[in-house]
Amino acid sequence: MSVNADLQRERAAATLDSEDFARWWAGGAWQLEERRSLERRFFEDPAFADTVHPSCLSYKERYEQTVARTTRFLAKLRQWQREKQPQLQLSVNMLRDFRLLLSGSLGTGLFQQSFPLRMHFTMFMTTILSQGTAEQQAQWLNRAWHMDGVLGTYAQTELGHGTFLRGLETRADYDALTQEFILNTPTQSSYKWWPGGLGNTANMAIVLAQLYVKGKHYGLQSFVVRIRDERTHEPLTGVDVGDIGPRLGGNGVNNGFLGLHDVRIPRNQMLMKNAQVLADGTFVQGRPPLLLYGTMVYVRVITLKDVLFGLLQGATIATRYSVVRRQSRINSDEPEVSILDHVTQQAKILPQIARGVSYRLVADWLWRFYAEVLRQLEDESMAGRNSLPELHALSCCLKAVATDEASEGVDLLRKSCGGHGFLSSANFDSIYGLATAAYTYEGEYTVLLLQTARFLVGQYVDSLKRKVLPTSVSYLRDTARLVWGKNLAANCARALEISALEQVRQAWQTQKMHQSSKVSAEMASNLAGRQLTSAAIAHAHAFFTRNALQQLEALRKKDDLSPNVSLVLGQLVELFVIDTFLRQSGCVLRWNNGITGTQLRFVERRFEELLAKLRPNAVALVDGFDFHDRVLGSTLGCHDGRVYERLMEEARRNPVNQEPVNSSFHNHLLPMMRGKL
Amino acid sequence: MSVNADLQRERAAATLDSEDFARWWAGGAWQLEERRSLERRFFEDPAFADTVHPSCLSYKERYEQTVARTTRFLAKLRQWQREKQPQLQLSVNMLRDFRLLLSGSLGTGLFQQSFPLRMHFTMFMTTILSQGTAEQQAQWLNRAWHMDGVLGTYAQTELGHGTFLRGLETRADYDALTQEFILNTPTQSSYKWWPGGLGNTANMAIVLAQLYVKGKHYGLQSFVVRIRDERTHEPLTGVDVGDIGPRLGGNGVNNGFLGLHDVRIPRNQMLMKNAQVLADGTFVQGRPPLLLYGTMVYVRVITLKDVLFGLLQGATIATRYSVVRRQSRINSDEPEVSILDHVTQQAKILPQIARGVSYRLVADWLWRFYAEVLRQLEDESMAGRNSLPELHALSCCLKAVATDEASEGVDLLRKSCGGHGFLSSANFDSIYGLATAAYTYEGEYTVLLLQTARFLVGQYVDSLKRKVLPTSVSYLRDTARLVWGKNLAANCARALEISALEQVRQAWQTQKMHQSSKVSAEMASNLAGRQLTSAAIAHAHAFFTRNALQQLEALRKKDDLSPNVSLVLGQLVELFVIDTFLRQSGCVLRWNNGITGTQLRFVERRFEELLAKLRPNAVALVDGFDFHDRVLGSTLGCHDGRVYERLMEEARRNPVNQEPVNSSFHNHLLPMMRGKL
Repeated sequence: MSVNADLQRERAAATLDSEDFARWWAGGAWQLEERRSLERRFFEDPAFADTVHPSCLSYKERYEQTVARTTRFLAKLRQWQREKQPQLQLSVNMLRDFRLLLSGSLGTGLFQQSFPLRMHFTMFMTTILSQGTAEQQAQWLNRAWHMDGVLGTYAQTELGHGTFLRGLETRADYDALTQEFILNTPTQSSYKWWPGGLGNTANMAIVLAQLYVKGKHYGLQSFVVRIRDERTHEPLTGVDVGDIGPRLGGNGVNNGFLGLHDVRIPRNQMLMKNAQVLADGTFVQGRPPLLLYGTMVYVRVITLKDVLFGLLQGATIATRYSVVRRQSRINSDEPEVSILDHVTQQAKILPQIARGVSYRLVADWLWRFYAEVLRQLEDESMAGRNSLPELHALSCCLKAVATDEASEGVDLLRKSCGGHGFLSSANFDSIYGLATAAYTYEGEYTVLLLQTARFLVGQYVDSLKRKVLPTSVSYLRDTARLVWGKNLAANCARALEISALEQVRQAWQTQKMHQSSKVSAEMASNLAGRQLTSAAIAHAHAFFTRNALQQLEALRKKDDLSPNVSLVLGQLVELFVIDTFLRQSGCVLRWNNGITGTQLRFVERRFEELLAKLRPNAVALVDGFDFHDRVLGSTLGCHDGRVYERLMEEARRNPVNQEPVNSSFHNHLLPMMRGKL
Repeated sequence: MSVNADLQRERAAATLDSEDFARWWAGGAWQLEERRSLERRFFEDPAFADTVHPSCLSYKERYEQTVARTTRFLAKLRQWQREKQPQLQLSVNMLRDFRLLLSGSLGTGLFQQSFPLRMHFTMFMTTILSQGTAEQQAQWLNRAWHMDGVLGTYAQTELGHGTFLRGLETRADYDALTQEFILNTPTQSSYKWWPGGLGNTANMAIVLAQLYVKGKHYGLQSFVVRIRDERTHEPLTGVDVGDIGPRLGGNGVNNGFLGLHDVRIPRNQMLMKNAQVLADGTFVQGRPPLLLYGTMVYVRVITLKDVLFGLLQGATIATRYSVVRRQSRINSDEPEVSILDHVTQQAKILPQIARGVSYRLVADWLWRFYAEVLRQLEDESMAGRNSLPELHALSCCLKAVATDEASEGVDLLRKSCGGHGFLSSANFDSIYGLATAAYTYEGEYTVLLLQTARFLVGQYVDSLKRKVLPTSVSYLRDTARLVWGKNLAANCARALEISALEQVRQAWQTQKMHQSSKVSAEMASNLAGRQLTSAAIAHAHAFFTRNALQQLEALRKKDDLSPNVSLVLGQLVELFVIDTFLRQSGCVLRWNNGITGTQLRFVERRFEELLAKLRPNAVALVDGFDFHDRVLGSTLGCHDGRVYERLMEEARRNPVNQEPVNSSFHNHLLPMMRGKL
């Protein structure tokens, strides 16, 4: 089991110490070692080995094998937690730590297309925590934590409604006589559709429904609904539940549909922390749940981290494969080269690494900003309340743009691996499926951009009134033209800001123009949809580049980077900024008239210089992300580079290859040949 | 089974007669009717109904069901052919017609992810036709046509080599004693890998191998090799064969691997039309196969048509779904609107329709150009020989850019359908899989671009020498600056030409610069890889837009378009040209300094005007592509618009929903709950 010679050569020649990088990337030596030890514990356990590649299984078999593995996984994880902390008690922090273990490298390594009970520990439990009263938490949380008869999910989206929450049709009518809610999905389009684990796994669901008391509508509320019998798992009377079927990715999730027909639940199963229905039907509205904003932001930050994880999985696979793969000669009298020696291949792969790393810097900052705002909100400080719109707007456009570019990046990385990248055993299909799903879920791309755009236009109007703007949009007041200095990355970031400013202005003007032609303000926004979304995208690019440069500087000031890590990180962030600039050159040039051809040539040349500088450290870099082979799940990307061997081994494992002659020969091919077509 | 009311309303209000459009699109009333009648014959036959969606099956089940259907399909197709032409005799034309039936709407409707025996009728038979002697054709063709003991495939690509054909490692050593060739795949990387139908279906293969006679190398030759016993289907001695496993798409193909270990075949199984090995081992080289060029061009033209077919399948699904789907209000006091009423949604979908239709115009032209060159070559005229490089260069960059943009378009269309687009039952995964596969096969994207770029740089150098250039690159001599006239589309097309010219110049200069810094010419090309590929892409855009405008004009001159079809076609081509211009604005603005902000605003405004003009005819247009529901294969895209009904029906059919409680509950979930995690 030797390591591929080309990979060995790359590693020996690198100037970056991948262990150095790995320690920084993991957040410290201790964190790196803990993750590795946890991974060893699970990944080396034969109970978690695949006998057949999941892509060969039927959808039903895949579900069954995923459930079997899920229960083994949860039990083993709980055991590990108990060893670490014998006095294991449920708490918010404990739940958060547990959730992080379910995703990230451990969850990915065991479940390349996710698994059904994730929603139980994420949305089901956190919703009870955030929206349940103390009694409700006492009633449900401990049982949920121990999976004591409770396997939950969170049912919001319906067949007919995702984005427009107010349009949800599921209803809960309060019956004061029996003190019960009667839940109904009155139309086909009101069937719940998508919740993870709902199909065949969950026996309870938090159901979002329009509350009606005595025929009066009180908006959306959350209800805890038992859907399957705790002992037999049979769907309860009035419950119509099943799996929604195979998808582009995430096929381990067991996404389900749910119809409810006169399903009655006791009054205390409406989550009542923020609003109550009293026994007699009186509706009491509590304080508006400001923190809901926070939850959405939280999910978007996590999504940002998820997609950069996928992007770097893809980049690791493509980088290693591109070293192992030799194809075509550069000089006709020399052997075929590693395809990573073709500049066109470097230009596909290295910018993706730069992007993933830069996203990480920004995601870390966004996380700190979010935590700060949350703390302020808990202290009921005005600062927190004032920062919410900015935080919301940022999290919207960063999530939208990052998921779009990360999934595009994964696709490009897959294509950079040629035909072999197309095979399921290369695992790009799973990685792409999860990345591109994030484009839509938890806020659809265009919808999120429009939310950011609304904020930006508002801020721009404020800037005209000479108001002080939040930091992330302060450039909207800076009308100075681009001054091209020596620092190319700074020039690029500034050009992107000017482009964003001009596009916000353009969106505002377009809206105004349409409004003056006698359409409603809403229709004017619709008609300016292209300008508004462009402005939000431009803002995201301006922010990503500016913030990544700032975070790099801050890291260097803290002085806890080794010189080589600092050097390579600088190259990556610069490459990211320049790459973003070049990819956006249409907008940049349109809105920065002053940029000359010579300046552009300098930027182009620097881009290629950075490729050349990063090329020798490409393998060391991706080694430094420290993805376990199981986490990559790819025949093309393993640490030892035994690409062709693994491709062949994986093919030989396929059940279709287990018999020399498939039954369809005798059943179909032979009769056809005898009939002589 | 009523039709969705919103779709009905759209159809009633359209100004375009979709039947009018359909007749033109199909190439005439007779062609439309013949296709429809053929489709009825197959699609209404219960033998071809799916009981379970293929995405629910295991890989092995899927293979077996595909083979069963394939044999029924071929038998029925042959029967239909015999009815049409009772004196059915194998001929080149007959084979071509048959091949067209295997793909296109019929093949797609029955096999959304293709099927194993396609290679038999395409590459296997055509290679024998083009490379076999008369005796070899007599020996094999009739048997192959009747599937009389012969199920063939074409084995070229290896595990370690795709692009670089000279690097193929499979070898054939001639043994003059026994007058046999001995075939071997001497290394793991030399295993054949990818051939369609090779896995479990084919019993013969045309194998490309390096010919050696008495240790001397005579280049790549083609050999007809039996790999499985005709009666038992057991792999023959020395043959190691199987399926390479699941992929991103095309999972019906049964792509296979093949190892050969001292497999002997008689001398007359080397295809000897162009080169012979005589009994004593003397090698005789015939005339160089100029027409090989032609075959590659043929495949690329077909690929162009395939990907525009997929793009328009996707556009049809997305358009109908976007009318049926109502989400969010525009004006707050009105009902939720069809999402196609959001301008952002129109901007996603309508340009894809415009692109697919414009590609079609260019593909038709390219086909005629190809046929003309072929005819000239057969007449041994110099004109044909002179046109080959231009034809080759054009077919390379058009195939590369079209497959890239079509698969990107399919993906955008899928995302425009939100979460539901992610479901396999929406069928975007199959459509995307086939479209993006074309990015790599029959000439990888970047490799093709570099081939075109080499031609372009050569032509540019010729232009400096004041030579006459072929028509498609004559703009390389036109150094006039952009004159912005009244015709916006013409301005855009001209700006794209100037941008292409400047990028070719830039690529040439970059190569020269690197060469002057003491690297080899080849290394200089590598270092200029980004500039070269950009130049080829720019050329493709310039050509697509210019040619689409010319074809539109030619069609209008012929005067066989109805006024409404002509009007809508004009809007589509204009939208395509403007959209291409805007998407390429980075290059366009960089290389056309003179374009002003006002001019850009005009282009933007025209883009939005065209969206508004096309919007009312969107459904009529996609109806006019006349995809049968089976060809779309999508719960979201059917003609009747019963989206939610079909989504639910498809989910209910899933085997995982056939029992109320899955076995994994008792086997795994219940024990876990009892153990109280």
